[in-house]
Amino acid sequence: MSTRKPFLSDNAATVHPKLWEAMRAADAPDNPYDNDALSQALDDRFSEVFGRECAASWIATGTAANCLALATLVRPHGGVICHEEAHIEVDEGGAPGFYLHGAKLMLAQGASAKLTPADIAAVLDPIRDDVHQVQAHAISITQASEYGCSYQPDELAALGEFAQARKLGLHMDGARFANAVAYLGRSPADAVGPCDTLAFGCIKNGGMSAEALVMFDPAQADLVKFRRKRAGHLQCKGRYQAAQILAMLDGDLWLENARAANAAAAEIAGACSDRLLHPVEANELFVRLSAVEREALRKQGFDFYDWGQNLARFVTAWNTPQEDAMALAKAIASL
Amino acid sequence: MSTRKPFLSDNAATVHPKLWEAMRAADAPDNPYDNDALSQALDDRFSEVFGRECAASWIATGTAANCLALATLVRPHGGVICHEEAHIEVDEGGAPGFYLHGAKLMLAQGASAKLTPADIAAVLDPIRDDVHQVQAHAISITQASEYGCSYQPDELAALGEFAQARKLGLHMDGARFANAVAYLGRSPADAVGPCDTLAFGCIKNGGMSAEALVMFDPAQADLVKFRRKRAGHLQCKGRYQAAQILAMLDGDLWLENARAANAAAAEIAGACSDRLLHPVEANELFVRLSAVEREALRKQGFDFYDWGQNLARFVTAWNTPQEDAMALAKAIASL
Amino acid sequence: MSTRKPFLSDNAATVHPKLWEAMRAADAPDNPYDNDALSQALDDRFSEVFGRECAASWIATGTAANCLALATLVRPHGGVICHEEAHIEVDEGGAPGFYLHGAKLMLAQGASAKLTPADIAAVLDPIRDDVHQVQAHAISITQASEYGCSYQPDELAALGEFAQARKLGLHMDGARFANAVAYLGRSPADAVGPCDTLAFGCIKNGGMSAEALVMFDPAQADLVKFRRKRAGHLQCKGRYQAAQILAMLDGDLWLENARAANAAAAEIAGACSDRLLHPVEANELFVRLSAVEREALRKQGFDFYDWGQNLARFVTAWNTPQEDAMALAKAIASL
Amino acid sequence: MSTRKPFLSDNAATVHPKLWEAMRAADAPDNPYDNDALSQALDDRFSEVFGRECAASWIATGTAANCLALATLVRPHGGVICHEEAHIEVDEGGAPGFYLHGAKLMLAQGASAKLTPADIAAVLDPIRDDVHQVQAHAISITQASEYGCSYQPDELAALGEFAQARKLGLHMDGARFANAVAYLGRSPADAVGPCDTLAFGCIKNGGMSAEALVMFDPAQADLVKFRRKRAGHLQCKGRYQAAQILAMLDGDLWLENARAANAAAAEIAGACSDRLLHPVEANELFVRLSAVEREALRKQGFDFYDWGQNLARFVTAWNTPQEDAMALAKAIASL
Repeated sequence: MSTRKPFLSDNAATVHPKLWEAMRAADAPDNPYDNDALSQALDDRFSEVFGRECAASWIATGTAANCLALATLVRPHGGVICHEEAHIEVDEGGAPGFYLHGAKLMLAQGASAKLTPADIAAVLDPIRDDVHQVQAHAISITQASEYGCSYQPDELAALGEFAQARKLGLHMDGARFANAVAYLGRSPADAVGPCDTLAFGCIKNGGMSAEALVMFDPAQADLVKFRRKRAGHLQCKGRYQAAQILAMLDGDLWLENARAANAAAAEIAGACSDRLLHPVEANELFVRLSAVEREALRKQGFDFYDWGQNLARFVTAWNTPQEDAMALAKAIASL
Repeated sequence: MSTRKPFLSDNAATVHPKLWEAMRAADAPDNPYDNDALSQALDDRFSEVFGRECAASWIATGTAANCLALATLVRPHGGVICHEEAHIEVDEGGAPGFYLHGAKLMLAQGASAKLTPADIAAVLDPIRDDVHQVQAHAISITQASEYGCSYQPDELAALGEFAQARKLGLHMDGARFANAVAYLGRSPADAVGPCDTLAFGCIKNGGMSAEALVMFDPAQADLVKFRRKRAGHLQCKGRYQAAQILAMLDGDLWLENARAANAAAAEIAGACSDRLLHPVEANELFVRLSAVEREALRKQGFDFYDWGQNLARFVTAWNTPQEDAMALAKAIASL
Repeated sequence: MSTRKPFLSDNAATVHPKLWEAMRAADAPDNPYDNDALSQALDDRFSEVFGRECAASWIATGTAANCLALATLVRPHGGVICHEEAHIEVDEGGAPGFYLHGAKLMLAQGASAKLTPADIAAVLDPIRDDVHQVQAHAISITQASEYGCSYQPDELAALGEFAQARKLGLHMDGARFANAVAYLGRSPADAVGPCDTLAFGCIKNGGMSAEALVMFDPAQADLVKFRRKRAGHLQCKGRYQAAQILAMLDGDLWLENARAANAAAAEIAGACSDRLLHPVEANELFVRLSAVEREALRKQGFDFYDWGQNLARFVTAWNTPQEDAMALAKAIASL
Repeated sequence: MSTRKPFLSDNAATVHPKLWEAMRAADAPDNPYDNDALSQALDDRFSEVFGRECAASWIATGTAANCLALATLVRPHGGVICHEEAHIEVDEGGAPGFYLHGAKLMLAQGASAKLTPADIAAVLDPIRDDVHQVQAHAISITQASEYGCSYQPDELAALGEFAQARKLGLHMDGARFANAVAYLGRSPADAVGPCDTLAFGCIKNGGMSAEALVMFDPAQADLVKFRRKRAGHLQCKGRYQAAQILAMLDGDLWLENARAANAAAAEIAGACSDRLLHPVEANELFVRLSAVEREALRKQGFDFYDWGQNLARFVTAWNTPQEDAMALAKAIASL
């Protein structure tokens, strides 16, 4: 495997050395669960990052982060509008149905797996306002989207206004939030906009086993704490979880890592702009490639997933070697 | 805090160095989720440990391990018989209600938080065999029990026969299974007896974030895999989870750690046998101590929990210094 | 069967003629579900009965009424404090676990299946205020209680104050609410006191298939409507349901029926006051009777349930013949 | 309202006189719940109807019938493939999510709201066989379909083979099963084909408040009984429920009623065959009508629902007067 060049996903990348250091530094006696000093520091640390009071909890997976966040916005008899290719619909094994006690995912269509108010209205408006049809309680968007595209601040503002007008909660799946912030060149606050909740991804960005669930309404933080425990996600040695997240935020390591991944993606994108299905606004590329072309690339040592017919997905990571990105760019250009 | 001698719990102890080594050794590219080589090795490794074919999965907490196991034995309209002070009833924040979709915990009484067939029959027998009353589908026992007592193999055999006769599944919460095995001086197979499922604890025993869920009916393993994902517990970098467990099993580190904790507990027990509420058959002591006595101990630097009135709980860990145990023994003896 | 004298339960009694008339009168075209004129009249009719604005919905069983009411007071991670012999705990087949998505019933003890603030505090106070233990969200009481005893208005007031102080919802299972009102000789408002929700029983009192769920916070009515539909309880020909309830309220038929049942119970009670386990404050009697005595009564044609050892339960109904009650009174007195 | 001619739905039609007679005849003492003689007769009666051993339970709504049936075929982590316009998806207020504990409805497309194996395969085949995606456990079809079309026996046989090959359960929503049987002119067994479960509709066909849930695997009957109670659907005076169903089966009243409704629909269809969106194979018509034309019909006293743009739905019932059907036919023909 060592000679292969992996562009399969960022989700199995190694762990950043600074996180190892932080976890080792945490390897001393402290209180269990999230009563340790590190876990207790998360609220303040994220409040700084976003420039407003928020509450933050570590959680082992993005799936759990998304679901626990949505559980604060959606009652069991309600629904969540999301893109038809959203991770919560397609790749979370029915976790939203479990965590939301049978609430319904309502699928919208939108370019590049992003949603606009009009996309959402197309789902909402035909719903009769009666008890025979499930009513939406929230919207879930993904930043960057499942097709590697980032919401601009004005797009988020428009969604926020729409959500408020329709009395819907607004959640952001930020599995690759860092990549979006890095791409946008804006503040974290700008990149999350008026969302109520954020699943702040660390694992794909050099973490090991901790994401952060950020609640912009701290009054809902208690609900998250109870539901996290109830879901068997309250680890007793939480300090190793918190340590990862704090290390990621220290000195903006999260943005440094994301910039590296984005740069590698941009490098490749530059070599195949005519083949791209979606703009490259994070660290994923969806590239039109025939079966023959894909075979050729694999023979040269590149690993990646097929994505439907005549399409390949390439994902870069925080530690993708510059030379690997250049090699892939060259290989595609040479096809 | 450094000068305090902590007997609060084993659940916040530091991580064993061999586990750190194993996690660092796993810090290389591999497949995501549980498709990596280490995760894939768990079934075989546990099959060796127990001398029969079983399936094993890593999972972040004992709560989730217990609940996922029970979900294979209990349908949503059924019930689980457990001790009224079982961890699943008292300390898991309602997780069984969540994972079992509203199935009921049915509380039995038994000496030292252990259950006998007669204890269970006392709950079962009054239940009318009709749809108006929830019917039990499974039994859950804890090895070692919540009061630090271990089931002997013949006690387990009796429970197994009873469970079979009543058509009930049998689950073992093994948060401190290692301590029980070490205490019993029997094989792991003897210590689990005829149980269908086992939550095999590592975290309290020097682990960081991984327990093992062991299924003795491998045909149910798929169900666990689907439910684990659905619960947001399928970590994408599973190799760091598997690494902890495999390191724990290597060279029987798990038993070595448990023996150390048990020895420390025995040291203390020897000094206060007349004060013990329960036999010390693992690494927990429940000691009769007046408020004045507890205050005196705390002044000497010992940390522990009060446990109801005139009772204190002391827990030793894999890394409890021998001198700390001796100091506590002496301090209690001197009261 | 015709020569038997049934004191088994009021739950299989025949239907009052006025309800048949009302159902037949409703047998004309109208809107489906609860959009018909009769269903739409329920809110106003119950607001008159209770002298304050409330919202009312028909529902096919007391079990569903209780559960839908509790679902407005309890979130899935919470608990409901009820008597250990409450119908919701003992006889509803786990329905609360289903409707409340795994919320926990927390069992209190109290004389005659009634609860006082002290009884409830005995359950509440030991619960640690942390996420490891399920926190109570509501209290459920039964009027008249499962042992046929009625709460006095001052007892209800005390419970209301306690619930408010502890921030708990307060639900009343009123399967035999009519019997309690009739016994108390007070207004319906006095008999329900400060409860938030009431399952208003009709079926045991001469109805066929409709109970009423009364919400004293009409703002929660919508939640009930959505959950009722979601539970498959929104019948399309709702007018036959509403007709039963309105007929029951017309001219206080409900109280007339309850008074008849209570009078029959009082007749019997008068003959065996020294044998009564609980005061007879509705239409149920729990009578100390040996196995030989019970056998003797059954030979004389009386049907009833054994209720544990040396105890029998007799229930009178709206249509219990005066001569049957007298015959039973005489038979017991003659034992 | 009396001068209006209602073609809105069959779901609010009056109750057939023979059902009233049967309910009144049941108005005598008997055992509660479904222990009465009438409820106990259902299994045998339906076994006769279908010519094979089956188990049958009354249940108050089609929604509950569908969900309880599906709960025997689908585990909480699974999915149900149904038409995107199936009643369970569109009109049951999320009840499947509730009863199936978060299992997923997976939406297929098919002509006239019917499904073929190919339609289902188009949903199934792209699902990856891993834990990240919800796997289907069952198929649900509707006979007659939501667009009033009936499955032919050979179509059902093909679906049965497909379901078996894919290891999927097969459920039939038979809200208008009677109309399908009447249209097909085949036996009930032919019209249900190899389905595992059937929600046998009575209410739209002249019933008041009882559908029948028919299990063709009687071994699953117990599961239905427990889940029905748990859902608060076990009425204590079940004999009035059973009476309706038995009266409907007596002398094939159910088919007589359905034939009347179908004949009225056919009468209308004959006058507007060029305007029909779907073949009329039961008692529903979907007719292309402009806004002006619909307005004209309403002015003539006809009531019906708009069904999207330029489309109207007309439903006939067991008691639709022949002259009303003729009048509507004439009115449409004259547009």
